[in-house]
Amino acid sequence: MAGLVVTGTPRAPIDLLDALAGYGVATVHEAQGRDGLLASPIAPVQSGTRVAGSAVTATVAPGDNTTIAVAVEQCQQGDLLVVTPTAPCDMGYFGDLLATSLKARGVRGLVIDAGVRDIADLQAMGFPVWSRHVCAEGTTKGNLGDVNVPISIAGQIVNPGDAVLADDDGVVVVPRTRLAEVLDAAREREEKEELSRARYLAGEIALDVNNMRPMIEAAGIRYVDYRTWKEGLGS
Amino acid sequence: MAGLVVTGTPRAPIDLLDALAGYGVATVHEAQGRDGLLASPIAPVQSGTRVAGSAVTATVAPGDNTTIAVAVEQCQQGDLLVVTPTAPCDMGYFGDLLATSLKARGVRGLVIDAGVRDIADLQAMGFPVWSRHVCAEGTTKGNLGDVNVPISIAGQIVNPGDAVLADDDGVVVVPRTRLAEVLDAAREREEKEELSRARYLAGEIALDVNNMRPMIEAAGIRYVDYRTWKEGLGS
Amino acid sequence: MAGLVVTGTPRAPIDLLDALAGYGVATVHEAQGRDGLLASPIAPVQSGTRVAGSAVTATVAPGDNTTIAVAVEQCQQGDLLVVTPTAPCDMGYFGDLLATSLKARGVRGLVIDAGVRDIADLQAMGFPVWSRHVCAEGTTKGNLGDVNVPISIAGQIVNPGDAVLADDDGVVVVPRTRLAEVLDAAREREEKEELSRARYLAGEIALDVNNMRPMIEAAGIRYVDYRTWKEGLGS
Amino acid sequence: MAGLVVTGTPRAPIDLLDALAGYGVATVHEAQGRDGLLASPIAPVQSGTRVAGSAVTATVAPGDNTTIAVAVEQCQQGDLLVVTPTAPCDMGYFGDLLATSLKARGVRGLVIDAGVRDIADLQAMGFPVWSRHVCAEGTTKGNLGDVNVPISIAGQIVNPGDAVLADDDGVVVVPRTRLAEVLDAAREREEKEELSRARYLAGEIALDVNNMRPMIEAAGIRYVDYRTWKEGLGS
Amino acid sequence: MAGLVVTGTPRAPIDLLDALAGYGVATVHEAQGRDGLLASPIAPVQSGTRVAGSAVTATVAPGDNTTIAVAVEQCQQGDLLVVTPTAPCDMGYFGDLLATSLKARGVRGLVIDAGVRDIADLQAMGFPVWSRHVCAEGTTKGNLGDVNVPISIAGQIVNPGDAVLADDDGVVVVPRTRLAEVLDAAREREEKEELSRARYLAGEIALDVNNMRPMIEAAGIRYVDYRTWKEGLGS
Amino acid sequence: MAGLVVTGTPRAPIDLLDALAGYGVATVHEAQGRDGLLASPIAPVQSGTRVAGSAVTATVAPGDNTTIAVAVEQCQQGDLLVVTPTAPCDMGYFGDLLATSLKARGVRGLVIDAGVRDIADLQAMGFPVWSRHVCAEGTTKGNLGDVNVPISIAGQIVNPGDAVLADDDGVVVVPRTRLAEVLDAAREREEKEELSRARYLAGEIALDVNNMRPMIEAAGIRYVDYRTWKEGLGS
Repeated sequence: MAGLVVTGTPRAPIDLLDALAGYGVATVHEAQGRDGLLASPIAPVQSGTRVAGSAVTATVAPGDNTTIAVAVEQCQQGDLLVVTPTAPCDMGYFGDLLATSLKARGVRGLVIDAGVRDIADLQAMGFPVWSRHVCAEGTTKGNLGDVNVPISIAGQIVNPGDAVLADDDGVVVVPRTRLAEVLDAAREREEKEELSRARYLAGEIALDVNNMRPMIEAAGIRYVDYRTWKEGLGS
Repeated sequence: MAGLVVTGTPRAPIDLLDALAGYGVATVHEAQGRDGLLASPIAPVQSGTRVAGSAVTATVAPGDNTTIAVAVEQCQQGDLLVVTPTAPCDMGYFGDLLATSLKARGVRGLVIDAGVRDIADLQAMGFPVWSRHVCAEGTTKGNLGDVNVPISIAGQIVNPGDAVLADDDGVVVVPRTRLAEVLDAAREREEKEELSRARYLAGEIALDVNNMRPMIEAAGIRYVDYRTWKEGLGS
Repeated sequence: MAGLVVTGTPRAPIDLLDALAGYGVATVHEAQGRDGLLASPIAPVQSGTRVAGSAVTATVAPGDNTTIAVAVEQCQQGDLLVVTPTAPCDMGYFGDLLATSLKARGVRGLVIDAGVRDIADLQAMGFPVWSRHVCAEGTTKGNLGDVNVPISIAGQIVNPGDAVLADDDGVVVVPRTRLAEVLDAAREREEKEELSRARYLAGEIALDVNNMRPMIEAAGIRYVDYRTWKEGLGS
Repeated sequence: MAGLVVTGTPRAPIDLLDALAGYGVATVHEAQGRDGLLASPIAPVQSGTRVAGSAVTATVAPGDNTTIAVAVEQCQQGDLLVVTPTAPCDMGYFGDLLATSLKARGVRGLVIDAGVRDIADLQAMGFPVWSRHVCAEGTTKGNLGDVNVPISIAGQIVNPGDAVLADDDGVVVVPRTRLAEVLDAAREREEKEELSRARYLAGEIALDVNNMRPMIEAAGIRYVDYRTWKEGLGS
Repeated sequence: MAGLVVTGTPRAPIDLLDALAGYGVATVHEAQGRDGLLASPIAPVQSGTRVAGSAVTATVAPGDNTTIAVAVEQCQQGDLLVVTPTAPCDMGYFGDLLATSLKARGVRGLVIDAGVRDIADLQAMGFPVWSRHVCAEGTTKGNLGDVNVPISIAGQIVNPGDAVLADDDGVVVVPRTRLAEVLDAAREREEKEELSRARYLAGEIALDVNNMRPMIEAAGIRYVDYRTWKEGLGS
Repeated sequence: MAGLVVTGTPRAPIDLLDALAGYGVATVHEAQGRDGLLASPIAPVQSGTRVAGSAVTATVAPGDNTTIAVAVEQCQQGDLLVVTPTAPCDMGYFGDLLATSLKARGVRGLVIDAGVRDIADLQAMGFPVWSRHVCAEGTTKGNLGDVNVPISIAGQIVNPGDAVLADDDGVVVVPRTRLAEVLDAAREREEKEELSRARYLAGEIALDVNNMRPMIEAAGIRYVDYRTWKEGLGS
């Protein structure tokens, strides 16, 4: 059944992607109603980088990266390639040559639920990658997955054209049709956090800043002095 | 049963904590008779930092960081917050806002057997964290754990007021009442290691520096030349 | 049965080791016919370092690093120490003192399928280490493994005198007798990759650079426009 | 965003589900073109059971099984409940009371990417469950996920109404619209395997039964006698 | 520091232990306010067994089971041995000979956060064991841990004399001083569950049995028909 | 480089293999000087079975079981097939058809550091398997590994013709040339254990049966009464 390549898929608008890259993954995840986060083993191979792109999706056969080569042809300026194998595999599906090719096409990064290699080169050339493994073991060629179909990766569904944001905290996917709305919520959230941050810096604490005292009262909090508590244990 | 906050807990003396921060975790673990080390999956999110503090302990409900907000109020200058969830969870219980608040109170760091987020911000602000996971997924609020009771974290029991030392090698806990004694042992150990180091630099090896030859004789060591050994295999 | 130390084992020629260090682990793994790679959990504790050395092999008893001290005596200029425990163990078998000793003898690095400690010191002194764990828990002494016998480590057999290459991507072992041949293949592969890289930079893609179109045709690739595909789903 | 319950979702025909339960998961996975298999950590808590049902899907908040209670109301005869948490969690979301309720409604089983408990009771009552964990830790109530939306579970997308087949080998999902076609392919495959099995029992081997000799010739197979090979190593 | 054996430790009353064994681990964990459960990787090597005993605690050095032999002497009728290594280790610390000895002393079982072996024999003789690993690799002798001190095992603190209950769902610890109170709560909980079970068997669902409809209303639940929802996606 | 099949490899004598199957894996591992045990994640898919056979070894390409079909032809009465993939992979390389074929040839079982499927069938036909995973995902064909070369599997080196023993505790390999000697040691060990078992049944404990009291004295054991110890803590 594999071997399907869907062409002419929609993209998220570049200006919205650029705006999205102005917020952190944690903020956007919250702004979206705590949705869309890839499982935490998908981590950056570099540090200090944040990118947002329009998803080109691909599945790959175990130990075979042919479909990545196929997907490259479907990528354009502003895209971000999102790849998952059809069975768990730690092999290095992606290295500096494919990165060179993607970078030349204006692709903003790679998210892959498998292994990558040549990571010293990837860092030197500044092509950002989020992966589950680092592994020098290359793959064979000849078996196909699919390109630009909805995929299930690290606990999330990613559709072609969804916005994908990645930074040191991980990777979050925002459905293309919700992007504008999520950006509004992220901006609002960040403004609110900025106000909170000023109060924290001034010495206030979350119980007051977030008005949590009624909540913890209701949950049954009780304060006991250390000596009293110690005596209670001794009995 | 949860919701207990013990107040007025004892602290380790600040000068002893500062002295403790002069030694590495590996040295202190040895000086303490190979005791008190948290399991190795608890690792730093930054690199090159070493801190020591007086433990404020907390347990948190799965996916709920309310108790961290409660614990912040119990923290003071020289403390280090130590948090464990009541069930394994990789969610991001802690981020830059709580870090801002703890830093403003003079807290020296966080050790948590769960996930944290905003790690680029944490590194930028210089608030050190040791955790099991990095995960952007935030938590909900409303369920309570306990604060400043003895907790079981990563294979060790930590009591409020215990000294906690953390660096690139991991995290070790020293009972408050043993701190002075362990510091003496650490100093002694380091002085001895300094002498050994000089001998190693001069080309001597551990078999002689540590007088291990009788021990390996007793354990039955036997040296065989490669050709002799190779012939033995062929038979 | 343990306690065997084989002496006078062969070494890979220094000039070939130096040549080997000119190639990446991924390249050499391919050049060798996709063979010899240690499993990916064996990772560097530093970043940006590549070394090649002649293997001195050792097995260690669980939680006991006596045999490393024994192995040090068998090490010489150009060697690389390769250690595996006889049962999985995350303890810190190796730290800055043993590193000082090995460095003084001209040893190029350590590969160990267990834990190491003092990693801040190891990085400061520039002694490169690849390990499965970082753990401050030191080991005891008194139980022996073997030195310079063939060992099974992370899925590969390493013989004393085999060439071992390690970088940010992992660790690969090259049998001593195949080293010259593998170097030729690596050089050839790298020259070919250099030509490909130029074409990628110029905007060509792998489907053309590697002449993959007939292969994906044979594998049954089919291109479908997004709208057509979408309609097919709706039926 | 959570809290959505989609009602009146389509179901797979009962007779096709019953036919599906006549084949093994491995067979159906192959018959479907090697597609639809949940990751292998999702395993049965009982042994020797095979069921097929129409998927009712649900997501649950971490450590909160409220949505399972909501989903029960959407379940009917012939359904199979498929549940995934929005963050990895090993807690016991499901036990004997919910099983009693589902069984009373004619539901055929549960697949969950989290923990379950009361497994002695589940086995005694004969309600089959596939899960990632067994854990006695119960959950809280009050937070909602969604019911009968497409979910991403263990690497697969499951839509409400998809056919789900589970046995000792794992769990496979078949899109409702492809069920008839996949059943045909499974039948065909099983008939073919029956013929092969007879040949294997008679002593033939796969190289001949599957006509693989030309393939391995093309892949470069070479046979070497043990003595010749041994001599080659010695040089 | 190791080598401490505390003698004459208190025990939980035998009749209360016998009463405790009448409830499941999941029930007791709930009755105790969701406290005291060991992490789920600690699992039974047999199936269908439930026991309760008074904890004799021990720590063991990595790869060395000497302290188990020491602990046996401290065990008596009605005890249950609880063992944790000071560093993670999968070796087989315990086999049929130690089981024979413990059984002869009336000990009710073993809980160990490490490996065990001879499991066919253990099952044949009916000595129940909960462990993290099964591993045939035996341990050495000569290094000591402690006996009958508080230990940290799989995320819980266990004190000598605490009641420990284990079944197919896992292991829960109940502080000795709370045992009577927890038994009351367990009985109450079970009676309530019995009533609920009858209602579930009669076809009622949890939303009604547990009066959850106001809660899910408050949490923002909304029901949407499949066709309406499908159209919403299409826009 | 792959594709090598070594023919005419030596076998362990059938009578010695049959004798070996009279001992448990744990006993033989000890008798061999604590050597040769495969890592504990390699576990039986059935329970209560013990077999010994002469190793036919094979490596397989990731996600491709062609080499198993090749290896079958090299198998004969009394053999046991030992397979490892060249990269970690959980796919189901082996199912009921290959088992039928091996059983027809008198092969005694399979050990594989990967996944297997059709496990209900395997158990029904009584063909024993030890594997790392159970997974219904089948493999492709066309890529070759090697047959009957030394392989590195789960931390051990296995040569063709080595004796392999497997039971509920795991898998141990005995070099063919050491088989007679190891059998003697196993018999001796079992006789000694039989004597010990009688003493344990009579109520003696290991400290006396194994004369361990001098050893624990030397290791610094100290006995403290519970009340004395409790007071020491309070100070």
